[in-house]
Amino acid sequence: MKPLEWIDGRLKFLDQTKLPLEESFCETDDVVFIADAIKRLAIRGAPLIGIAAAYGVALASLSLNRSMIKDARPHLLSVLDLLSSTRPTAVNLFWALERQRRVLDAWQSDSITGLQDNLLNEAKLIHQEDVEMCERISSIGVELLPNDCSILTHCNAGALATGGRGTAVGIITKAWELGRLKHVYMDETRPLLQGARLTAWEMKQAKIPATLIVDNTAAVLMQQRKIDAVIVGADRIAMNGDVANKVGTYSLAVLAKHHGIPFYVAAPVSTIDVRMGTGKDIPIEERDAREVTESFGKRTAPESVHVYSPAFDVTPHEFITAIVTDQGVHRPPFSASLKRLNVRREHAG
Amino acid sequence: MKPLEWIDGRLKFLDQTKLPLEESFCETDDVVFIADAIKRLAIRGAPLIGIAAAYGVALASLSLNRSMIKDARPHLLSVLDLLSSTRPTAVNLFWALERQRRVLDAWQSDSITGLQDNLLNEAKLIHQEDVEMCERISSIGVELLPNDCSILTHCNAGALATGGRGTAVGIITKAWELGRLKHVYMDETRPLLQGARLTAWEMKQAKIPATLIVDNTAAVLMQQRKIDAVIVGADRIAMNGDVANKVGTYSLAVLAKHHGIPFYVAAPVSTIDVRMGTGKDIPIEERDAREVTESFGKRTAPESVHVYSPAFDVTPHEFITAIVTDQGVHRPPFSASLKRLNVRREHAG
Repeated sequence: MKPLEWIDGRLKFLDQTKLPLEESFCETDDVVFIADAIKRLAIRGAPLIGIAAAYGVALASLSLNRSMIKDARPHLLSVLDLLSSTRPTAVNLFWALERQRRVLDAWQSDSITGLQDNLLNEAKLIHQEDVEMCERISSIGVELLPNDCSILTHCNAGALATGGRGTAVGIITKAWELGRLKHVYMDETRPLLQGARLTAWEMKQAKIPATLIVDNTAAVLMQQRKIDAVIVGADRIAMNGDVANKVGTYSLAVLAKHHGIPFYVAAPVSTIDVRMGTGKDIPIEERDAREVTESFGKRTAPESVHVYSPAFDVTPHEFITAIVTDQGVHRPPFSASLKRLNVRREHAG
Repeated sequence: MKPLEWIDGRLKFLDQTKLPLEESFCETDDVVFIADAIKRLAIRGAPLIGIAAAYGVALASLSLNRSMIKDARPHLLSVLDLLSSTRPTAVNLFWALERQRRVLDAWQSDSITGLQDNLLNEAKLIHQEDVEMCERISSIGVELLPNDCSILTHCNAGALATGGRGTAVGIITKAWELGRLKHVYMDETRPLLQGARLTAWEMKQAKIPATLIVDNTAAVLMQQRKIDAVIVGADRIAMNGDVANKVGTYSLAVLAKHHGIPFYVAAPVSTIDVRMGTGKDIPIEERDAREVTESFGKRTAPESVHVYSPAFDVTPHEFITAIVTDQGVHRPPFSASLKRLNVRREHAG
């Protein structure tokens, strides 16, 4: 099952808000619909929203015809702005949009179809690269794991979050294929339960032995020595190795360090933001209070209660054992290791 | 609003499962109904379930008449067993039942009304003692707090969990009354959201400035230096100071220690189990998977997913800055301090 596919000039995507109850697909040729899908987390996961946004720009170009050649550039620039404004934290979004901006910049304002082809090809390339990056991350990351290991993961950094087999979950499924995996523990990941709804669903599809816990139980499993490694994805990585990821990641990292458990971050190099020296300046999205107080259709807190709901947190690099990218395993000091990476400087705008 | 009241031979209690949407009271003279209310967490909180169980024994005795005098003892012993079997972790339950067992033991099998009076008086005494214990804990505990402090609390150790003003929340409301409190942060406390449903409701009633967070955000607030102290209740305290409390407490304690934030446990001495040398042998209740997978009336995880859902965890004493009881503040080494306490040995049964 692919969370996102380009079919005959339309983008088909799985509405992930409906999982695990329904496997419901949407098809659209409307970039506004894509932007909305990203905003409401129907399409989510740092790599996947980059891919979706790239296709969104291609879709927007397809609605243009030859008579609109003069309006094409300003129109597509506003589409880039629209897509940029959907979610602030995952840098892959801006990275993918920057790649499309370069395609637009390179356009000679000659042929609309040429522009359309180039934008679509760039989107397909981003998509295909992500498939390959996931494969490489999985193959590289699995070598870090001991035999017969039990892994804890948070949120969903799986096939549903990427164009391919996933990052953190890619490593887990690879370990399973190689007979190295004993068990997976999944944090449900409040508030939006991506662990319960999405990772548990992926583990079920893959028939991997897995146990769901509330986030509060992660420390208990560590105390019981049931966890051999923690593996998570990332939404943005600073050049010193600080990692922004789903809220709860920082908590897990501190707990893992205390219990002497390796803590791995898995992400494609497109997640590394060369403009960010440290994690301090990474913008952290705050989500609507209702995701906490009535996220499952039932009010579970008093009316008008004040809620603080950051969607992400920043884990300082000193808590991270290694960062697994498609270009290899990076260990502290990350500054040196990440600097040597071939990070495409699309971020730099 | 009292969560539990004895009125004219019946026990009236707030059904806490319905909060915050409904303030719904039940009245009963049936001990089986009380046992069920404890099991399904309509009555919850370690001190409160002790009080409710004591009243339950009194209620059971009231259904006896003079012709049943021979059956009274075996009947009430089976009632003690029934109430003992409701929940395994909070020791206050067993402590209160043991006090009623002693009343029964002291009974000369002479007058049924004498027995009824004695059981009811003992229940009222346990209730009244708890009110006073809460007051003392609050007055003693508040002295530990700096001025203008922000407190993080977990689950609900408030008026809804006790006969009085609460333990952890009692300290918080006392700090508010004395003008020492700046802000309260409340973990929602998955899976059953006692923080969101109950503590947030209590804070709203008391008009105390409070912010609700998902449990994953606690570490973020600590990282941001927004928390001056963590205060939680307890379900059972071992003689070395290990504390069983709502799952997530251990996680918070490790995080607090890492961030250099004092971590306080507040509980009446009835929570101390003189038979437990360490926390290792404290029985930990496991709850139904459905509380995790469909607790909000909507299924949020795939069918047949395996769930591990301990209701409590054990925080080793080395993470605890101080234990505040009605008999004073206990600091490490707890073994020495707790041994000097005047813990009624009802537990020893």
